Amino acid sequence: MLSVYSDEYFMKQALAEAQKAYDAGEVPVGAVIVCENRIIARAHNQTEQLTDVTAHAEILAITAASNYLGSKYLTDCTLFVSLEPCLMCAGAINWAQLGRLVFGAADDRRGFMRLGGKELLHPKTRLEMGIQMEAASDLMVRFFQEKRL
Amino acid sequence: MLSVYSDEYFMKQALAEAQKAYDAGEVPVGAVIVCENRIIARAHNQTEQLTDVTAHAEILAITAASNYLGSKYLTDCTLFVSLEPCLMCAGAINWAQLGRLVFGAADDRRGFMRLGGKELLHPKTRLEMGIQMEAASDLMVRFFQEKRL
Repeated sequence: MLSVYSDEYFMKQALAEAQKAYDAGEVPVGAVIVCENRIIARAHNQTEQLTDVTAHAEILAITAASNYLGSKYLTDCTLFVSLEPCLMCAGAINWAQLGRLVFGAADDRRGFMRLGGKELLHPKTRLEMGIQMEAASDLMVRFFQEKRL
Repeated sequence: MLSVYSDEYFMKQALAEAQKAYDAGEVPVGAVIVCENRIIARAHNQTEQLTDVTAHAEILAITAASNYLGSKYLTDCTLFVSLEPCLMCAGAINWAQLGRLVFGAADDRRGFMRLGGKELLHPKTRLEMGIQMEAASDLMVRFFQEKRL
């Protein structure tokens, strides 16, 4: 059974965001930011809808969470994102000094892990990966298979 | 004499943006995006004013240029920025497939060059650095000296 406050629970919320991206024809990545066990920001990839490469789920979620908290720094927050962040998003996560980053599926092509990994994050940011990995990965595979049809 | 369309000219425009950031108490970084010898986006660092670590000059300029052109990709554009981009901005410049990146002063602490350099950009992005380097650097030094008073 799912505990309301588990990593699994919050990642499912990030996956629900990823599904919204999928439904809109966007690369299906979703994110939520959690502070004191409460979701303070939800976002999904909107690069097509906004015609803007910077509109990744993580960037939109960080902007929304900072706006909500009135603080540039998110040191007491956890970012849950369905896919391993890219370099741009890892950079943003560093600047925001996120307390913790949890991602689902790995992104071997554009993920930050192969380009420097944890060293690219703020020293205080804890890192966890592989939560709900299969669900996140399945959504990506399904998306790109359909694109190819 | 300055030619209207020289790199020096456009970097001076980026520096004018950096000065706006300086006047607003922001870390003084400015950027312009040029397409067919025309400036299609101007931006300066607004992280404090917008309470948002993602509001770097480059990110704001890319968003504005994409909006203006109606295209996510800026393959025929040059981004002039007064300071060496950070990892986040290098990532955004990669996604946008900028035709050319020109920066002024180096940023030995947070710049992307020491973290992978040109490899982090899109293979098609040409890179130039050191244009109006002293002016950009002076503005940064002056800003941090005043912060310390």
